[in-house]
Amino acid sequence: MKLSDIASILGVEFKAKDIEIKSMNTLKDASKDELSFVSNSKYVKDIALSNAAAIIVDEKTKDAVPNGCVALVVENPYWSMAILSKQFAPLIEDNTLADAKIGEGSKISDKAELANGAIIGKNCTIMAGAYIGTNAVIGDNTVLYPNVVIYRDCIVGDDCIIHANTTVGSDGFGFATNKLGQHKKIYQNGNVVVEDDVEIGSSTTIDRAVFGTTLIKTGTRIDNLVQVGHNCEIGEYSVMVSQSGLAGSTKLGRNVVMGGQAAAAGHLEIAAFSTFAARSGVTKSIKENGLTYAGFPLMEHRTWLKLQSRIAKLLK
Amino acid sequence: MKLSDIASILGVEFKAKDIEIKSMNTLKDASKDELSFVSNSKYVKDIALSNAAAIIVDEKTKDAVPNGCVALVVENPYWSMAILSKQFAPLIEDNTLADAKIGEGSKISDKAELANGAIIGKNCTIMAGAYIGTNAVIGDNTVLYPNVVIYRDCIVGDDCIIHANTTVGSDGFGFATNKLGQHKKIYQNGNVVVEDDVEIGSSTTIDRAVFGTTLIKTGTRIDNLVQVGHNCEIGEYSVMVSQSGLAGSTKLGRNVVMGGQAAAAGHLEIAAFSTFAARSGVTKSIKENGLTYAGFPLMEHRTWLKLQSRIAKLLK
Amino acid sequence: MKLSDIASILGVEFKAKDIEIKSMNTLKDASKDELSFVSNSKYVKDIALSNAAAIIVDEKTKDAVPNGCVALVVENPYWSMAILSKQFAPLIEDNTLADAKIGEGSKISDKAELANGAIIGKNCTIMAGAYIGTNAVIGDNTVLYPNVVIYRDCIVGDDCIIHANTTVGSDGFGFATNKLGQHKKIYQNGNVVVEDDVEIGSSTTIDRAVFGTTLIKTGTRIDNLVQVGHNCEIGEYSVMVSQSGLAGSTKLGRNVVMGGQAAAAGHLEIAAFSTFAARSGVTKSIKENGLTYAGFPLMEHRTWLKLQSRIAKLLK
Repeated sequence: MKLSDIASILGVEFKAKDIEIKSMNTLKDASKDELSFVSNSKYVKDIALSNAAAIIVDEKTKDAVPNGCVALVVENPYWSMAILSKQFAPLIEDNTLADAKIGEGSKISDKAELANGAIIGKNCTIMAGAYIGTNAVIGDNTVLYPNVVIYRDCIVGDDCIIHANTTVGSDGFGFATNKLGQHKKIYQNGNVVVEDDVEIGSSTTIDRAVFGTTLIKTGTRIDNLVQVGHNCEIGEYSVMVSQSGLAGSTKLGRNVVMGGQAAAAGHLEIAAFSTFAARSGVTKSIKENGLTYAGFPLMEHRTWLKLQSRIAKLLK
Repeated sequence: MKLSDIASILGVEFKAKDIEIKSMNTLKDASKDELSFVSNSKYVKDIALSNAAAIIVDEKTKDAVPNGCVALVVENPYWSMAILSKQFAPLIEDNTLADAKIGEGSKISDKAELANGAIIGKNCTIMAGAYIGTNAVIGDNTVLYPNVVIYRDCIVGDDCIIHANTTVGSDGFGFATNKLGQHKKIYQNGNVVVEDDVEIGSSTTIDRAVFGTTLIKTGTRIDNLVQVGHNCEIGEYSVMVSQSGLAGSTKLGRNVVMGGQAAAAGHLEIAAFSTFAARSGVTKSIKENGLTYAGFPLMEHRTWLKLQSRIAKLLK
Repeated sequence: MKLSDIASILGVEFKAKDIEIKSMNTLKDASKDELSFVSNSKYVKDIALSNAAAIIVDEKTKDAVPNGCVALVVENPYWSMAILSKQFAPLIEDNTLADAKIGEGSKISDKAELANGAIIGKNCTIMAGAYIGTNAVIGDNTVLYPNVVIYRDCIVGDDCIIHANTTVGSDGFGFATNKLGQHKKIYQNGNVVVEDDVEIGSSTTIDRAVFGTTLIKTGTRIDNLVQVGHNCEIGEYSVMVSQSGLAGSTKLGRNVVMGGQAAAAGHLEIAAFSTFAARSGVTKSIKENGLTYAGFPLMEHRTWLKLQSRIAKLLK
């Protein structure tokens, strides 16, 4: 998409040299044929380091954009980004692509749907009602139980098991809001990568990234009815028990355990081997490895036990 | 159904003039060809204002029924209503109706199922495994991802996106219980209406109304694994984050935000622009607009922060 | 499977008389052609009473195994059991079995899938996208809404209603973990039995037992997005409200009510007629019938109310 067309969609006057923009990305990850944006003052410091060809900014941020990078100045950069996200969204299914490829020994139910461009490895079992989207890739020996949905562009590794009615790659919960309180969808143009030897329970939901990848690393075990928000990363051999959830962009180290109904807020980094008791509520990053937590607000589990005994004394 | 037949099903002697009863409804909403019931003494005051042709009551309430309205006197009105709800339940699918109508430009997967009597608007995308029930209506430009289920009689507006494995219109959780602790299903003969420009995540469940409509207003954003009980109303541009839930008959004003895992009890009214932090538990109606809450029991967010610091002091 | 082959898989020297082992089971339930294991010292006392033909134990437990029972001595019995569980897992679908049998009067959507060996009773409604696995049995008059998945070997009784996108019989969340923090799946070779007159909401997940049966008794009502772990038992006429959950092996008596988002830890026994308010967290067994609880930590509801008023005083 031409940068001049992008400017036109945003209603911005365009005088710079025109170039082709391939996609949108964050300031940090944008390459020189990508567009980025600044919607929060805490990211202004990232502008100078960005390789983006152009950046959507507001009036008070425009001077931070260096020479050689085009500043597209708008009133509400986040809203403008949302408008553009739709322009960069790929087709839901692309029927111009070749038929799905199926590896040797794989059993595909005739009631499963493989979109064009999908690739299925060897010795997989893809059961009735399963859906594999455009350009999605499934590794070898993987089992998808009935009605599992893998959205386009997502990747599932070897030796994975995904149980019935689970969704991998639905859109992250992203939207801009204007002064009138109206919402504009931010199309989620990233994907999900599930590495090898991962088992995911039934009716679990793993959202695709807005940009980049939501990543579930090797050996992780995810139970039923678990929510994984967009752009999360789950470290190797982590465990998420039923009805637990991660808000967007939170990163778990390896062997982290989220107990039943436990949850973490977004944009956190959780150290390896952390264990969260059932219904823990994690709202801050955790740097020290290997501790056990409970409660909401969160505290060390032993502190929580002590606190509960103190609270019980209030009854006397 | 004849009122005399209804009386016969309930084992009630019937001497009044017989009439045709079209359906059941609440006291407030019943019209003159409908049957109603009183199962809770707090609704006795509504009897005098009801237009119902007949009302199921118990012995101690029967005298509140005015002349011109037939009192059907039973031991357990709620149980009797449950028995009758089955009589008024429509067929799950009605194959005597015409084939589904499909608007111009819509793409319907050959693995989707459109029940007879369904109507699909223009330029929709209905993906594999999606199910649209009898008499359900889908507006223009709406996308239903794989395995979305829209039960009969439900209406989804224009420009909506519903993600994989989500259910709109399953039965509300309604049953009567007798003295032996046994339950009798109350058939949920209402529907769900999702207005325009609503996005709903994956594996979310929105129950149909027992009578009338569960209503999701324009511009609302609902995340994954969210529960919306029967007869709820969600105001324009509201936001329900993952794993949050509303019990039956609760009404949210516009731009209400339910944080992750937050929940509200049933039969509440929540003022516009209220925000509930993650895991809030709302048990009372809220009249003042625009405040932010947290905790369970619920309190203003700033109070909750203060309380947590006071609680932490118990450890000293 | 020959016991000598099992020993070989585990890398254990085998000198005993060889026999055919039919399956694995717990110490208590194993019959004389079954293999069992001890992975936790609290079960050592069950060894003497077990009828198992052979028991997987570690070095320090081996002497508890009586004469006539073969001790297979390994470093990590739970890990070894996990390895063997895969050997005993049946095929996901067994196409050597006869076509599914369908009772008189049942309507089966041509978009539903009935695996070989399945048996459907009379007057059932099996809607589009529903899946009934190998050897699964559905009773009479039962309705499975679209995209319901019943895994192999599971049994659903008469007069049941299961709403859309619900899963019955997905694998329980079971795995062994080694010193490196790696997980090994424990194949869940039990099943789920849902007795008569049970209604289950949409996007609910009920896991199959690792051994034996996850049991939902007659008349129970389960709402949407509920989690029932492997080997749970839910007593007659119990009620599980939306987003509630039971961890594995917990047993509810009859007429137990789990409020919205309430949850119970695993391996508990809950007395009949217990009621748990919304978001209760149950971590201990309950012996007395008929009380009402709230909170986490759990306490009687009236105590919880008193405690909340005491806590509120901390603000003064």
